[in-house]
Amino acid sequence: MDVTVGVIGLGNVGLGALQILSENAKSIREKLGFPLRVKSICSRNVHAKNLPLGGEPPVRTTNWKDVVCDPEIDIIVEAVGGTATASHIIEESLRERKSVVTANKELMALRGADLWTIANQNGVNLAMEASVAGGIPIHTVLREGIAGDRVVELYGILNGTSNFILTEIEKSAANFQSVLAEAQQLGYAEADPSADIDGLDAGSKLAILAALAFGEKLTPADIYTEGIRRIMPVDFEYAHQLKHTIRLLCLARQTEQGLLLSVRPSLIPQAAILAQVKGAYNAIWIRGVYGEDTFYYGRGAGPKPTGVAVVSDLMRVAREIRFGSPERVSPFAHERLGEYKPLPLPTQKLPYYLRFRVEDKAGIIAMLATILAKHRIGIDAVLQLPREDWRDLPFVITTEPAGEQAIRDALVEIRDADFLVEAPFAMPMERGF
Amino acid sequence: MDVTVGVIGLGNVGLGALQILSENAKSIREKLGFPLRVKSICSRNVHAKNLPLGGEPPVRTTNWKDVVCDPEIDIIVEAVGGTATASHIIEESLRERKSVVTANKELMALRGADLWTIANQNGVNLAMEASVAGGIPIHTVLREGIAGDRVVELYGILNGTSNFILTEIEKSAANFQSVLAEAQQLGYAEADPSADIDGLDAGSKLAILAALAFGEKLTPADIYTEGIRRIMPVDFEYAHQLKHTIRLLCLARQTEQGLLLSVRPSLIPQAAILAQVKGAYNAIWIRGVYGEDTFYYGRGAGPKPTGVAVVSDLMRVAREIRFGSPERVSPFAHERLGEYKPLPLPTQKLPYYLRFRVEDKAGIIAMLATILAKHRIGIDAVLQLPREDWRDLPFVITTEPAGEQAIRDALVEIRDADFLVEAPFAMPMERGF
Repeated sequence: MDVTVGVIGLGNVGLGALQILSENAKSIREKLGFPLRVKSICSRNVHAKNLPLGGEPPVRTTNWKDVVCDPEIDIIVEAVGGTATASHIIEESLRERKSVVTANKELMALRGADLWTIANQNGVNLAMEASVAGGIPIHTVLREGIAGDRVVELYGILNGTSNFILTEIEKSAANFQSVLAEAQQLGYAEADPSADIDGLDAGSKLAILAALAFGEKLTPADIYTEGIRRIMPVDFEYAHQLKHTIRLLCLARQTEQGLLLSVRPSLIPQAAILAQVKGAYNAIWIRGVYGEDTFYYGRGAGPKPTGVAVVSDLMRVAREIRFGSPERVSPFAHERLGEYKPLPLPTQKLPYYLRFRVEDKAGIIAMLATILAKHRIGIDAVLQLPREDWRDLPFVITTEPAGEQAIRDALVEIRDADFLVEAPFAMPMERGF
Repeated sequence: MDVTVGVIGLGNVGLGALQILSENAKSIREKLGFPLRVKSICSRNVHAKNLPLGGEPPVRTTNWKDVVCDPEIDIIVEAVGGTATASHIIEESLRERKSVVTANKELMALRGADLWTIANQNGVNLAMEASVAGGIPIHTVLREGIAGDRVVELYGILNGTSNFILTEIEKSAANFQSVLAEAQQLGYAEADPSADIDGLDAGSKLAILAALAFGEKLTPADIYTEGIRRIMPVDFEYAHQLKHTIRLLCLARQTEQGLLLSVRPSLIPQAAILAQVKGAYNAIWIRGVYGEDTFYYGRGAGPKPTGVAVVSDLMRVAREIRFGSPERVSPFAHERLGEYKPLPLPTQKLPYYLRFRVEDKAGIIAMLATILAKHRIGIDAVLQLPREDWRDLPFVITTEPAGEQAIRDALVEIRDADFLVEAPFAMPMERGF
């Protein structure tokens, strides 16, 4: 009467899920009407690990094929991560007619739609709530909760590490490098932090969410991606003057021409609820044609929040196995909808924040204004906080709504001016939430 | 191949659902793999109405039994409201082995668990996403999205009318009566506003959410309920001095003794995300043992947001009808869990905000302090803004964490003092989000 589970991979996610399956076994059984039983667990060092297991001890193996090929196992938890072995594990499990629960954002962003097709062909399910925004059940929301609506905009803060770093810079005015070092010491950032701070991790998550929300086949390559390395404390000073703050904003916006997709540091109004998202949290703002605005917030990562997502997926898939299989249409939906192709370049018209670091001399503003005017970019404001070092003065120009392409062209023309200490830095100023 | 729907009741909710079913027919068909067809609609004046319908025109009737007894109809949408006829419609539909989708918070709060038992006995579903917080898919979140977690606290702003009134008083410093009149003019409040402003509507919603979150059989009678009629602009002035704001807070909190349940105006920190919820919006803050904090926000009402909830429920139930029935355990769960009985009186220890309106004379503070000390209530601060009318001076005492019962006892003792212009007014100061 029970549904059996095999867990492959015993990193943070695998261990978090095992702990919850063990400690919550009673309430899971009561909510389902039958128990979930972990029959096998697999990892390279499975015999060395002290595992949070209750009930009958599961079989331990170091060979994932033992788990995937076990005819008694109904559902495989893929918690290996990465795109190599994990890809084989998922594909082989699906071909063995086992449903799969995965937390693998990278793989699902790259191959989610294909893997879903294989799942479909084999009459099993592929669940991936844990792949985006750990503690926030955003897949469930998109797949079921607001399934009746049509999404037109989705904004997210999807990388907890970047958000921690940005809000630390905001709070302490320390520079990027020292806050990054602090985040590494606290375990919020990895030794090689580039996946987080260059926006790649957020890009994978946005690719998955936008595919679900808009019914498009998307990969991270469709998304304009820019990280947070250039953010300086002075950017927050200027942003606050403008009653804004700065977040690494993930954006998917339906336009008449197609889908605008970007991950980039952006100014957002301090009065926006999204601006209240601080530290290692994630959040998603969705605008639908009928339901209008909804907002979802929670832990972005961590063994237990991500474990909740894995276990909740297990419960849903187990219900289907026991009582029928209600979901046989790909949540990626690209074969059916496919109305909004990604646009190659953001064509949005928005106000921009342009920050320059210059060696002070006469005529700088005049020269910049001339170039901007040439590209038909109107100036909204010029901000300059008092600074002592005349050889490295940061100041800001905000523009009237302007096309992204015009901004880029203007900045290329400005880039080589001899008074610049570094290349100009541009961020869009987002509105509308 | 299609799944057929009968809609009973053509008020805001029924019309909103019909509009979405018609305008989104294509994407609904694509997300499901089959169409949803509205076969019949029923209301007293169904023939007079100009309805948003696409495709084959449905049968129109004024007799709900025509719809409920039609063997071709799979799912009934109960959008009548109230607890009389709606109760018969739902019960009879379930006994006819039709699944039901309802937006009826009042009825589900009173009879949800019983009706779910009838649904279960007849092998059909009873879906009620639209009954709480229209645009926020909070049922889906509790039932599936975070099903693997154990909820320990749930806070909500669940009545849009009250929240509109409170945030208008906060913004404009107008008094309660004039803001209520404005809300009535705008259509946010009804001619008889008591269900909204006395907390009854919010109480029904909290009863449903707490039942789902904690697996208890609860009704509105289990909830301490207090409305917002006594809130004055000066309360916001004092709350702001304390870096707080005021909201009609719905609360369900697990303690070792049982479940604390209340709907009452409360002070919440201005820095809390919940404090950013303004106007006719709803929001829910959930704390789980494993997933920690998550937060959900959206429109609380309106034909279209509530229509999204109805249509999303229809899609889920239709999937089950076509492919199997995965959910045959009551979401109310009280027969299985039942670990946390509601407590008869809030036993919480919290700091309190006590507001007095007095005719100024010597010795008032001394007398109040003496009574509070007698009840072992420590004073944290005494606040008095400058005022001109010495015959009606509002001032505030905030306390150290104190028991609700001690506060009540102290206020009873103070109530008859001759210097009081009206009875003292107490609000808890909530923390922890």
